[in-house]
Amino acid sequence: MGNPAYDAYRENVAGRSDVADTPELVAYYQQLAQLDTAALWTVANKIEPWEPKSASVPVLWRYRDLREHVLRSVDLVTPEKAGRRVIYLDNPGRRDVSAAVGWLYSGLQVMHPGEAASAHRHSSSALRFIMEGRGAYTIVDGHKMTLGANDFVLTPNGTWHEHGVEADGRTCIWQDGLDIPLVNTLEAGFYEVHPDLRQAVGHPVDDSVALWGAAGLRPQGQRWTHRYSPLFKYPWEPTYEALCRLARLQEGNPFDDTLMHYVNPVDGGHVMATIGASMQRLRPGFAGKAHRHTGSFLYQVAKGRGHSIIDGRRFDWQERDIFCVPSWAWHEHANASDSEDACLFCFSDLPVMEKLGLYHEQALADNGGRQPVAPLPG
Amino acid sequence: MGNPAYDAYRENVAGRSDVADTPELVAYYQQLAQLDTAALWTVANKIEPWEPKSASVPVLWRYRDLREHVLRSVDLVTPEKAGRRVIYLDNPGRRDVSAAVGWLYSGLQVMHPGEAASAHRHSSSALRFIMEGRGAYTIVDGHKMTLGANDFVLTPNGTWHEHGVEADGRTCIWQDGLDIPLVNTLEAGFYEVHPDLRQAVGHPVDDSVALWGAAGLRPQGQRWTHRYSPLFKYPWEPTYEALCRLARLQEGNPFDDTLMHYVNPVDGGHVMATIGASMQRLRPGFAGKAHRHTGSFLYQVAKGRGHSIIDGRRFDWQERDIFCVPSWAWHEHANASDSEDACLFCFSDLPVMEKLGLYHEQALADNGGRQPVAPLPG
Amino acid sequence: MGNPAYDAYRENVAGRSDVADTPELVAYYQQLAQLDTAALWTVANKIEPWEPKSASVPVLWRYRDLREHVLRSVDLVTPEKAGRRVIYLDNPGRRDVSAAVGWLYSGLQVMHPGEAASAHRHSSSALRFIMEGRGAYTIVDGHKMTLGANDFVLTPNGTWHEHGVEADGRTCIWQDGLDIPLVNTLEAGFYEVHPDLRQAVGHPVDDSVALWGAAGLRPQGQRWTHRYSPLFKYPWEPTYEALCRLARLQEGNPFDDTLMHYVNPVDGGHVMATIGASMQRLRPGFAGKAHRHTGSFLYQVAKGRGHSIIDGRRFDWQERDIFCVPSWAWHEHANASDSEDACLFCFSDLPVMEKLGLYHEQALADNGGRQPVAPLPG
Amino acid sequence: MGNPAYDAYRENVAGRSDVADTPELVAYYQQLAQLDTAALWTVANKIEPWEPKSASVPVLWRYRDLREHVLRSVDLVTPEKAGRRVIYLDNPGRRDVSAAVGWLYSGLQVMHPGEAASAHRHSSSALRFIMEGRGAYTIVDGHKMTLGANDFVLTPNGTWHEHGVEADGRTCIWQDGLDIPLVNTLEAGFYEVHPDLRQAVGHPVDDSVALWGAAGLRPQGQRWTHRYSPLFKYPWEPTYEALCRLARLQEGNPFDDTLMHYVNPVDGGHVMATIGASMQRLRPGFAGKAHRHTGSFLYQVAKGRGHSIIDGRRFDWQERDIFCVPSWAWHEHANASDSEDACLFCFSDLPVMEKLGLYHEQALADNGGRQPVAPLPG
Repeated sequence: MGNPAYDAYRENVAGRSDVADTPELVAYYQQLAQLDTAALWTVANKIEPWEPKSASVPVLWRYRDLREHVLRSVDLVTPEKAGRRVIYLDNPGRRDVSAAVGWLYSGLQVMHPGEAASAHRHSSSALRFIMEGRGAYTIVDGHKMTLGANDFVLTPNGTWHEHGVEADGRTCIWQDGLDIPLVNTLEAGFYEVHPDLRQAVGHPVDDSVALWGAAGLRPQGQRWTHRYSPLFKYPWEPTYEALCRLARLQEGNPFDDTLMHYVNPVDGGHVMATIGASMQRLRPGFAGKAHRHTGSFLYQVAKGRGHSIIDGRRFDWQERDIFCVPSWAWHEHANASDSEDACLFCFSDLPVMEKLGLYHEQALADNGGRQPVAPLPG
Repeated sequence: MGNPAYDAYRENVAGRSDVADTPELVAYYQQLAQLDTAALWTVANKIEPWEPKSASVPVLWRYRDLREHVLRSVDLVTPEKAGRRVIYLDNPGRRDVSAAVGWLYSGLQVMHPGEAASAHRHSSSALRFIMEGRGAYTIVDGHKMTLGANDFVLTPNGTWHEHGVEADGRTCIWQDGLDIPLVNTLEAGFYEVHPDLRQAVGHPVDDSVALWGAAGLRPQGQRWTHRYSPLFKYPWEPTYEALCRLARLQEGNPFDDTLMHYVNPVDGGHVMATIGASMQRLRPGFAGKAHRHTGSFLYQVAKGRGHSIIDGRRFDWQERDIFCVPSWAWHEHANASDSEDACLFCFSDLPVMEKLGLYHEQALADNGGRQPVAPLPG
Repeated sequence: MGNPAYDAYRENVAGRSDVADTPELVAYYQQLAQLDTAALWTVANKIEPWEPKSASVPVLWRYRDLREHVLRSVDLVTPEKAGRRVIYLDNPGRRDVSAAVGWLYSGLQVMHPGEAASAHRHSSSALRFIMEGRGAYTIVDGHKMTLGANDFVLTPNGTWHEHGVEADGRTCIWQDGLDIPLVNTLEAGFYEVHPDLRQAVGHPVDDSVALWGAAGLRPQGQRWTHRYSPLFKYPWEPTYEALCRLARLQEGNPFDDTLMHYVNPVDGGHVMATIGASMQRLRPGFAGKAHRHTGSFLYQVAKGRGHSIIDGRRFDWQERDIFCVPSWAWHEHANASDSEDACLFCFSDLPVMEKLGLYHEQALADNGGRQPVAPLPG
Repeated sequence: MGNPAYDAYRENVAGRSDVADTPELVAYYQQLAQLDTAALWTVANKIEPWEPKSASVPVLWRYRDLREHVLRSVDLVTPEKAGRRVIYLDNPGRRDVSAAVGWLYSGLQVMHPGEAASAHRHSSSALRFIMEGRGAYTIVDGHKMTLGANDFVLTPNGTWHEHGVEADGRTCIWQDGLDIPLVNTLEAGFYEVHPDLRQAVGHPVDDSVALWGAAGLRPQGQRWTHRYSPLFKYPWEPTYEALCRLARLQEGNPFDDTLMHYVNPVDGGHVMATIGASMQRLRPGFAGKAHRHTGSFLYQVAKGRGHSIIDGRRFDWQERDIFCVPSWAWHEHANASDSEDACLFCFSDLPVMEKLGLYHEQALADNGGRQPVAPLPG
């Protein structure tokens, strides 16, 4: 084997690095390495790319494939031993960090009636989106919430939280979403198990919704200074009604049709400091145009069926399927039905992109805004 | 008549002014006056009072007294001649500025089916609270809203706006609320009549509610940088439901029971730059404690009956009555019914007090928090 | 004497009120008055004017006229009796509220070496601008500041504060500026005398400047959540240098030449919640154009001489003179010297106008932006 | 070699995962992998650590070691070929991402009189800290700044910028600091070469300082809505004076003595959206206590000599040396001199930690707040 090549990233473009290896330079590079340094021009074109190229790949996780495996975990491990019985989505391009896409983690968790996971808290922000079952609940800092299918619930960073299913409920499956990989890579992750393993419920059930879940109304005398929403639960029915009402009144946007962001009612911003979420409705027959933007996005099909074309590959989805759009990947969504609407739940690191000034967006100009589609891999 | 007394405000308290008139001083004061100046110590105790003493007096306006007069205005003047047929509330302490209380104006406006007022805009912020009738509507910058009893609607400063009643409606009466006296006294009032006297409706009816009236949801792609809420209409039913739901879950506050502020969903703040509004619910049997705070408050009874004690005077009210609480006046509210709730709509200059750092609040410590009541005059 | 005229404000303009008195209407108006109400159309054109018309009049207070009277107050009253020996500026249009212009109070205070005023605090925001003398100091919440000519110092609302002159100093005169009339008219004024009449100095002298007075630097670990600047003193020399440096680099603005606002370094906003201040420099030979805006402005000539034309009247000023520009009054400034610059200190209620959404501005279009000048009243 | 161990991260702690591999489970894991999924309990303890453990290691880069290598790059490559002649700091724990510490890049750049680098812009935020030479300048969006030793200059994300040395200057060396690794890992990096390779200077030299570099003053009429400071240059002399002045007035903090953050004068916040910077002064004889916090910090010694103990290792530094403190590493600083002060320039990703709600801090409680020190490695 010969010397390593230091000139692998050369570009013959004005303003870019274009230095060929010479014996003298290679010797110089080796001296630099001994001082824990290196020459920028050997890596400049690599570390300053013209545009983002995500390490994540587009993936569709079919619920009909996953469901039985998720349920099987109940037989294989106990909550006590496993902590939580979760099958997580492991993007082939991000196996090193256990991410579904970008720096976002997601998993499917199952719980039987009468079970509960132990309470803990961590630096990561977390959310759940309920997929099936009855009797699920979450407790956040003493506030208990009851949950049904397509309900969206927050367990923000730093809050004590635990999940369970009532004894008279039915086996529940939900999707967890967290920024664990982001917090880890930013080297800021702390974790604590609750000293009692359980927390007391210190407030009336669903009080968060009663206090903060009224449109255009703020309860008197409630101060809130956290960076996350005091409204912990966003129920499905009013969300779906709001989308339908808005869709009746005005045309949607060419990429997403009718989309609403879940927000913190205290300041109108994203629900948590690092994770945003939205629900969108594709009207019957909708076929969106393609665009791309920075940030990593994970979708769950809350209703209906259709397809998305992501970086030229077509993914056909139906209710409960999950798919991801990596950063700066072209994507377009279409509803397969001419009579039924389709709804996509989505969570993302959009707050991170926005706060750090890194959000960029581009519409596809060519081909009427539609991507050419490659055949699905065998 | 002798010389004017310059020492009318003397106080024999350390740190306060206590200078008696002398011939030499009076001569000095007269010299100062010729230079458009004066001696601070002659007015210091007057202009730096120990605490606020409002120029407004508590008043109860009974709807059963006012209604026939309001309706009679229809026979007496045309909308074309009168601009608007409004009977305004004229606080006996503020007749010079046409205010209901403090720097807030309020009036009762009547409109017959098929009538409409001409469109205009002004520096004042305005609101309406619907009292009776059917078919009322308001248009704000091309957004038309349909209105029913107890609906609350904004016509913020600088927006073109007009009011009307549909031809197939019924005679409507509503309460107007504005900061006209404040804007006038701040010498910042501008007024324009719409060049066409009417504005076009440029959006689907009630689109403001469809876009911004969903709890915890923000429509994608809508930028909003105005200082007022993009949600122009706050309908009664969901507001009342929100109050009932919250009241079932938790005890109210000792002064106001269950109270919710109407807010701007974009930032969670007050609905307009100078005027805030709220709806409160007094549960059956509620008898609140007394407190006082800066700011001027005007109430309309949206539901039920009861009484308020304001600076020691008792005012018994029923649905549609209006009453005011001047700045720093002690006040306590009570529901007269043991079976029905009572609801009070209120608007105020609370945003002004807060933004200028002038809000203060005090609970009555004596007598179990209840004021001794003077007999009603007359 | 006949009946009062209710139709004094008629305008024959579409969209405005134009109702003539009739016996029937007058009888109706009298009935309304008995219910503490009135008809809007009788006052609508009065309370909704087309544009602001200030109650204040432009005034120039010449220091050479005032100085001896200010000094004479020392012989006439003691600080103990008078509280403070201040001659205040009494705008002829605002005598009822002891204002220099609009809702701003201002006075000239004198203090002899070794004297000190008693400590107090109030809801009003206050400032001082030093005119002459040596050894002046102010203490704000235990922070002592030493002051020289043209230094600007804050005593924000709610802070304990007191003024004095060191025993080895020289008689000092300064200008006080407060929002007393505003706070009074908003019925939010509280006043307290310090229980000890004096406060202890609890920090190193001028620590406020050491902590917060470095450009582009923030001291570590200092939290500040008040609505006013933690930088209490803005010394003259660096302010003047900053204006000169900026003027060398770029052309000024046609109305004000080079103007800088004093700001709160914590958030870049105005120095206090209700009062803003600025220093501007008119280069030699500068003759500004006219504009007008809402808000009330009081100027002190910190350096040089020149004139201002305010609503068509010319006022010639020199160092230490004070003059006011009422709301919506046209005004233009000119430096009388071709070799020396002139500097104007100014304070205003601009923060109020901005926060309440009431700021408007207009340049004079006619006559090359210059006002025709009326002869000074005889 | 046998099967991979899935149970490498077991912990026998309540609430943590503790599942041993069994043949049945291993088979299950392999099935999951085929669906791009995995079992959370196999990695939970790894991805949810009890506290951060940085991948970066503490490093001291001695300027006396690096300087000749930096200068030698001038002979080895041309600016045209290399883009920029920079030797970057390559943390042994982060070689994959070319980072000096955490997600921060830093390098030493050299330029000869008359040279200039081509203009470009990128999503990364950048800064320079001048180490030696004369005649250096930077142009940011047409604003040219002249630079001397210890001056700190911003080239914020999205701005066109270029660096050069005047023809009559002397060879300059400066430290570059960027968030390139962060922007890359967030998959949001864009890069553009200026179409003309040079930008025109469109403003007076150093106008940014004239406009925004005056303490407590804001130029009239300048709107600024970017997420970065409009003050692009923070000169050394006033910074050092401000530190000395503050140090004379009050005791420093036990960890950092006297430290000031460079701030955006428009809002008082960090200078750029992702990078913060500070200068601190260790008084003669200062020996700080140890603490640790999240975030990555890179120091350059601007003045003096001393040592820092980082995670138990001692690093002795002198002027121009650079060292890093990784996230959550214990660190304490000491000045080696009893007569001269020492100053440390520092930049970090503190804005990222704060905005994302990930900042945590802890003081060392044991041993009087001082770390036991390991001998330096061989």
